[in-house]
Amino acid sequence: MIKRIILIALFLSAQAQILLAQLPNIERIEPMNWWVGFKNQSLQLLVRGNKIADRSVSLNYPGVKLVSVQKVENPNYLFLNLQISSATKPGTFPILFSKSGERVMKYNYELKSRTNRTEGVTNKDLIYLIMPDRFANGDVSNDRVEGMKDMSLNRDSMYHRHGGDIQGIINKLPYLQDLGVTTLWLNPVLENNEYKTSYHGYANTENYQIDRRYGTNLLYKKLVDECHKRGMKMIKDLVHNHMGDQHFLFLDPPANNWFHQWPKYTGTTYKDQAIFDPYASKADQKLMTDGWFDKHMPDVDQDNPLVRNYITQSHIWWIEFAGLDGFRLDTYAYNDLNYMAEWAKAVTREFPKFTFFGETWVHGTANQVFFTEGRTANQPINTHLQGVTDFQTYFAINETLNGKFGWTDGVNKLYTVLASDYQYKDPTRNVLFLDNHDTDRFLSKVGEDYEKFKSGVILLLSLRGIPQLYYGTEVLMKNFANPDGKVREDFAGGWPNDQTDKFVAEGRNKKETEAFNFVKKLANYRKHNPVLQNGKLMQYVPENGMYVYFRYNDQKTVMVMMNTNDTAEKLDTKRFEERIGKLKTGVNIVTDERVALDVIEIPAKGTFILELQ
Amino acid sequence: MIKRIILIALFLSAQAQILLAQLPNIERIEPMNWWVGFKNQSLQLLVRGNKIADRSVSLNYPGVKLVSVQKVENPNYLFLNLQISSATKPGTFPILFSKSGERVMKYNYELKSRTNRTEGVTNKDLIYLIMPDRFANGDVSNDRVEGMKDMSLNRDSMYHRHGGDIQGIINKLPYLQDLGVTTLWLNPVLENNEYKTSYHGYANTENYQIDRRYGTNLLYKKLVDECHKRGMKMIKDLVHNHMGDQHFLFLDPPANNWFHQWPKYTGTTYKDQAIFDPYASKADQKLMTDGWFDKHMPDVDQDNPLVRNYITQSHIWWIEFAGLDGFRLDTYAYNDLNYMAEWAKAVTREFPKFTFFGETWVHGTANQVFFTEGRTANQPINTHLQGVTDFQTYFAINETLNGKFGWTDGVNKLYTVLASDYQYKDPTRNVLFLDNHDTDRFLSKVGEDYEKFKSGVILLLSLRGIPQLYYGTEVLMKNFANPDGKVREDFAGGWPNDQTDKFVAEGRNKKETEAFNFVKKLANYRKHNPVLQNGKLMQYVPENGMYVYFRYNDQKTVMVMMNTNDTAEKLDTKRFEERIGKLKTGVNIVTDERVALDVIEIPAKGTFILELQ
Repeated sequence: MIKRIILIALFLSAQAQILLAQLPNIERIEPMNWWVGFKNQSLQLLVRGNKIADRSVSLNYPGVKLVSVQKVENPNYLFLNLQISSATKPGTFPILFSKSGERVMKYNYELKSRTNRTEGVTNKDLIYLIMPDRFANGDVSNDRVEGMKDMSLNRDSMYHRHGGDIQGIINKLPYLQDLGVTTLWLNPVLENNEYKTSYHGYANTENYQIDRRYGTNLLYKKLVDECHKRGMKMIKDLVHNHMGDQHFLFLDPPANNWFHQWPKYTGTTYKDQAIFDPYASKADQKLMTDGWFDKHMPDVDQDNPLVRNYITQSHIWWIEFAGLDGFRLDTYAYNDLNYMAEWAKAVTREFPKFTFFGETWVHGTANQVFFTEGRTANQPINTHLQGVTDFQTYFAINETLNGKFGWTDGVNKLYTVLASDYQYKDPTRNVLFLDNHDTDRFLSKVGEDYEKFKSGVILLLSLRGIPQLYYGTEVLMKNFANPDGKVREDFAGGWPNDQTDKFVAEGRNKKETEAFNFVKKLANYRKHNPVLQNGKLMQYVPENGMYVYFRYNDQKTVMVMMNTNDTAEKLDTKRFEERIGKLKTGVNIVTDERVALDVIEIPAKGTFILELQ
Repeated sequence: MIKRIILIALFLSAQAQILLAQLPNIERIEPMNWWVGFKNQSLQLLVRGNKIADRSVSLNYPGVKLVSVQKVENPNYLFLNLQISSATKPGTFPILFSKSGERVMKYNYELKSRTNRTEGVTNKDLIYLIMPDRFANGDVSNDRVEGMKDMSLNRDSMYHRHGGDIQGIINKLPYLQDLGVTTLWLNPVLENNEYKTSYHGYANTENYQIDRRYGTNLLYKKLVDECHKRGMKMIKDLVHNHMGDQHFLFLDPPANNWFHQWPKYTGTTYKDQAIFDPYASKADQKLMTDGWFDKHMPDVDQDNPLVRNYITQSHIWWIEFAGLDGFRLDTYAYNDLNYMAEWAKAVTREFPKFTFFGETWVHGTANQVFFTEGRTANQPINTHLQGVTDFQTYFAINETLNGKFGWTDGVNKLYTVLASDYQYKDPTRNVLFLDNHDTDRFLSKVGEDYEKFKSGVILLLSLRGIPQLYYGTEVLMKNFANPDGKVREDFAGGWPNDQTDKFVAEGRNKKETEAFNFVKKLANYRKHNPVLQNGKLMQYVPENGMYVYFRYNDQKTVMVMMNTNDTAEKLDTKRFEERIGKLKTGVNIVTDERVALDVIEIPAKGTFILELQ
């Protein structure tokens, strides 16, 4: 093993910064601090330092016990198993690393008081997904950081860095609050010190450090605090499945079993079916789970308890440190689900209302429901995953707006996907979306048809679940994921010298203004009216391409009527007596127009959303 | 109510035979007899006779108690609730119907000994679906029956009667046994005394009488006995949901709540989603369940306990009377599922191994699994339905053979449908099929491509579940369901003067001989090799349009390799080491050729099925 590490070190000689100083040192202890008062009283510290394994370890603090010191193959690591009793008081104490005849090394470890009291992210919220490199550049001084591996800075390329950062997001919080957004989800902001395409953030090289091109840990915490001051929330994007290949744990691994090793590069099959297929071969299961997601993203070995602890503790650390409200779990299906179940229980144990949802980019209800909590669909394992990025409604909304009405096609697909909700423990925890950083932008997906655009926004903000907007959708940003990645373009106005500024009314053209006001009006109605948050849903069998559903509670009834045909059509509301009752009119939530509830003409591909009165 | 009955009677004056004699009489008691030894000791007799409700009822037989006599709106009916204790001996006793001043009427009621010891139909079997009017005419004397309403007899029309019958099927049992068939499923053979299209059998007008154009109750029992003598089994096709509009119970209903009444004709929406949709309106649920399947098929009111008893008892009667092995349940999704659950428990209580599966012509795993037993997919109700006609594999096989290979398309659809089996309590009880009386014939569906045909037959006979052949598929019968119903053509040779006879080798042309021998070879291999019956299944992720799966048990391993591409392709078997192990060769089950297990070329759209050795 030592030989292998040396070989790697030689091979990677350019990456001098990962090599340890040759003198005895403590390069890092992670987590760097912890909190008292967790239900789980165990804490496992990763200690990294030159030949640290030669040292004996001691500490002395009331309530804290050093249960054991664990050595691994690589002498540059030690794992300290601490027990922190419930009576332990916050404070700082030294951890001593001794070796006979040498100077004692000391690390002051702090235990803080817990402060996170999050209520989590729910269907009361509207999530806004931001790609931090592409949204707003609030601090040009960090656009390039000397010594980092990706020194690109080129806004003309989709694959280079553009300079967006956390300060930029802080600056735009008033804009987002005005729009009606209640929650931010940023693509990952941990350090991605990769040589190429470091901007997307999914190849972290640190677990406890914000990428310096975005800011600092403290600035990130400030962003969360600023959100909270505005009644807004923060979702952090996590990747359990892999790390970047420039992660110190990959470049100088504690042991052979921190990443899945293959004789030659072996990618995952991306076939989620192998996970739930009762007839799957072990070979296919292993390929799916242990194959690498990408050549630069080594697949984490989640069978290793040290790995599990390291990852899980880093997540709990971030919840407490930054005051987070939720997690989005990247590439969920590729993980070891036993670990993910353990992880979910560990998080929920400490933060009962904390929200997390997994990315399940799969096709079919059976495929998606498998990964969700409970064993409602006969899953062999309960993942305890509260919700998912709901690709099934995403596909169905696309089919509704672009497909042709048929027995299983057009809006019948959406109708069926929603009807299939019986399989979930709680479908209202699923995250609805029209687009995200991986998909075509919604406006392009609907052929830049503005009626379809508005229909999609209404679906997003009035169906069950937690809606998620992708940055810029509200000002009609467009383009496709393939072949040029232009779904990740900059938000115009986010950079100091941008020609136009879509963040302000004057910068938006007529159509953009209309779209912005449309989204804002509906988002703010939703924000202030529980009926669209957690009201009951009732949908009717689509007939002749016309689709009608209701959200209702004891106070209000909202009626959505959609015409998926290519021509304007009349809708007779008689059929919906069960919900309309004796009400005679509805007020269009967007236009404030009052409409009589008898026969209503709806434009081609158009949708009305009415509050019945 | 009386007024309504008179009106109906006048309106239907042509249907004199349903009018009761004007003199006091007992037109019928149903069930006509019963058995001792059932766990359910209750028996409810429907008595029909002119003003029978005026009579008092008595009986005297050791162990049998007349618990109550139930009157309904129509005085021509009485319902007798009997209790038959476990100690009751077989025998006959009179039931007396008395009225002061009139002659006592008497019905001799027989209680028989139970004989049915069925083991049910399982994945050991191969079902052969026969449309009785179209298979073989063994008795020309019953082609037309004087006094029945449909007097058509015209083999040139798909909608007229053709003359096929039970004797015809009895005559062809040697042919079917030779083919490898182990189980017959006949489309319904109860009396369908309808004016039009009476041939299909799904509009029964009696519940206890075989249609005279097919034969008699005793001849039907003889058919079952003849099957059993050959080690073959019988599945009866049931319709719980509706009856024919010429059924005596519709023409002269016992009460208003025997059929669902609508102000004007109202058909079902055929939307199964309304049954499981957590967001469905009551209106849509009612339309789906209570709307009529067809103008001539009144929808049974299954909320009525008298109706439930009448139907359930008739089914138990047939199991005992004829010695049945299984039921196929027509239009399953349209029934009241609470009743269906009660029905399933009633049948299984008396016949624990008896098989029944429902027709669920729905689209999607979530749609199909909902109706199956258990609450494995979070169903709000356990229907106790053992299996279904597996339309999801049917659609997927079609896509496999006719679609283009893609991420979710082509054989990936079949791969995914099978992977989704995790949702079923027991997917091996589902019935696989390539075609049936409602669908296009398989050969036509695959564009008369013989390679595709053989591939489909291999899938049918080697995937999990109970395979079902449709009559004539084995001799390449073809044609489409729409627009002309030609999927229901006669089996050539089934009629006395047919020009060709496909039942015998001499009557089949070269291609038909090849197909027949192909099906026969594989069906008989399956019949004699448990590995294809209940061996485990392992499937591999399809790659490059190539699909490989295995069936295996402790004794044998069968490997199926399919090329869904339009060109011949080579398959490297290295990837399948987990199942192939150290085996070096396989013997083609159809051709007996021995093949080396290294790189195997498979023709376009072709499939090999090998027993590894």
